[in-house]
Amino acid sequence: MDTLRWDGERLWLLDQRVLPQQEIYLPYDTAQEVALAITDMVVRGAPAIGITAAFGVVLEARQLSHDLAEKVSIDWPQAMLPALTVLRESRPTAVNLFWAINQAEALLAQAGDVPAVLEAWAKDMLVTDIQTNRHMGVLGAALLAEDSVIYTHCNAGALATGGYGTALGVIRAAHTAGKVKQVFAGETRPWLQGARLTAWELSREQIPVSIVVEGAAGHIIGERGVDWVIVGADRVAANGDVANKVGTFNLAILAQYHGARLMVVAPTSTIDMSTPDGRAIPIEQRPAEEVTHWRGETVAPAGVHAENPAFDVTPASLVSALVTERGVVLAPDTAKLQALFAS
Amino acid sequence: MDTLRWDGERLWLLDQRVLPQQEIYLPYDTAQEVALAITDMVVRGAPAIGITAAFGVVLEARQLSHDLAEKVSIDWPQAMLPALTVLRESRPTAVNLFWAINQAEALLAQAGDVPAVLEAWAKDMLVTDIQTNRHMGVLGAALLAEDSVIYTHCNAGALATGGYGTALGVIRAAHTAGKVKQVFAGETRPWLQGARLTAWELSREQIPVSIVVEGAAGHIIGERGVDWVIVGADRVAANGDVANKVGTFNLAILAQYHGARLMVVAPTSTIDMSTPDGRAIPIEQRPAEEVTHWRGETVAPAGVHAENPAFDVTPASLVSALVTERGVVLAPDTAKLQALFAS
Repeated sequence: MDTLRWDGERLWLLDQRVLPQQEIYLPYDTAQEVALAITDMVVRGAPAIGITAAFGVVLEARQLSHDLAEKVSIDWPQAMLPALTVLRESRPTAVNLFWAINQAEALLAQAGDVPAVLEAWAKDMLVTDIQTNRHMGVLGAALLAEDSVIYTHCNAGALATGGYGTALGVIRAAHTAGKVKQVFAGETRPWLQGARLTAWELSREQIPVSIVVEGAAGHIIGERGVDWVIVGADRVAANGDVANKVGTFNLAILAQYHGARLMVVAPTSTIDMSTPDGRAIPIEQRPAEEVTHWRGETVAPAGVHAENPAFDVTPASLVSALVTERGVVLAPDTAKLQALFAS
Repeated sequence: MDTLRWDGERLWLLDQRVLPQQEIYLPYDTAQEVALAITDMVVRGAPAIGITAAFGVVLEARQLSHDLAEKVSIDWPQAMLPALTVLRESRPTAVNLFWAINQAEALLAQAGDVPAVLEAWAKDMLVTDIQTNRHMGVLGAALLAEDSVIYTHCNAGALATGGYGTALGVIRAAHTAGKVKQVFAGETRPWLQGARLTAWELSREQIPVSIVVEGAAGHIIGERGVDWVIVGADRVAANGDVANKVGTFNLAILAQYHGARLMVVAPTSTIDMSTPDGRAIPIEQRPAEEVTHWRGETVAPAGVHAENPAFDVTPASLVSALVTERGVVLAPDTAKLQALFAS
């Protein structure tokens, strides 16, 4: 199972909207199609969005190269601008998207065989992401004691990344080390990434997982002695505030109340030192129909409004540990994150 | 719209499982059918369950009276025992069920035309419940300031009671008094009572309501300046601990974190002084399929377990105000609740 596949010509995305009932790979030939796939959540998860966008950039460069082959030279930064803009605007919160596009822009300013350079870059990003996750998995698992009871939210797994996962990478590594007693996966409305994706990933590897509705989190964390709430992130601000799937903030508060700890697992590509704190992170508002409808069928009364923020911001004060590939930051703050990047 | 209707011969229950898309009244002729309707959540909400059970008792008494008409006398307590047991076992957490059955038992020990006595008692319970709710509505609304922003959970409305509602009774009264700026209704998985029932009740009366997923509660309470979280209860223990729809405990913790207050609105029939504290309240575990399936269709991966506690317990320490028909108890504890019943 791969989140995405690059066959040298086309990008294939595993359609996460229909998992786990159907495993379908959809083909993409243009940056515009890729941007729409990101908006429509064919692919989701901050690192996976970044990598997907990178291959969207590759597709655009190839097409330009093909279309403009008769010309002597292409003004790459200029020619690529519309596609980069479309990709940038596909979703607002996860910073890996902008991180990837910014890298692409820097490469465009260089000489050389741009499509080939970009393809090598995107492929390297995919490989590096998996290595990064495996390394974070080891670092995060080291924080766990034997017989840990873990609660996770949404899907920060192989499906949210190039592979292996951030939060689920830690859970995978901890399971391999024999430290996992039980994982609770919050179902994560409205898209049910927890019930559909996380439960699927973990059950395939015989990691003990139970799905719970999000309303049950306070009860479960208290009654089942959850030691750690482990989540990924869509953007970490310079002060350690964490934007992640809506519901994370709840869990952070519930964990604090019950004396459990919160571990945020995110590569440094998810940390945005240009965002000073959580208030500066744009929170995507998604369509009300994602809440009021279920597979096209209305659930709520006709005409009733729903608010559908896709993310929330957990203040750094509630984060026990931020696990990155450069190391673990306990009780993160601006100084510690600056030191992390300086290291 | 009535939660239940008694036509003098049969009980009719509004099937809450298919609201708001369909408004269907189902007929009931026996106590056994009524018990199954409670178990299967045709009707739900602690006060509504109590009243429904009362009419189930009436149906049984009438049937016995009819079947045994040739006999000179019926040993009512003995003859009714099986039906009362079936009704008692229909759901374990809401105490109004047991409160109603205990009252019926006391009436059976008296002489007279038992079916007629029981019918008058059940009809009176229904009328009294609505009066009680209206009175609590006024008491609770008095606690709210102008332009209040309110978050409610599940459905503690007309549909959960004989009519008008407990939590929604307060919201109705506050709206009439011009005090309600906005109501947020948590959708309340897995049954979506918030999205289906509360949003329906409030929108029919032009009370401004927005549905949110439960994961958004922490974000919404903080960002939208929620003043009060207002909920009903399924059982209040003698020390003020509150069992209510799972997710209430989350909201209580989130409210405390954000400096919002928690109002629990419950008639004294929901307060069980024989239950010392929340640990003594049995929490119903409902079928996993309610979480893993949607209208018969599987959502989660095949074979993955879900835990489905239907209720949770909020400690009295998180309750700002308990509103009953006998008065408001601020920061409830055992002494205050004893005083309430002594008054």
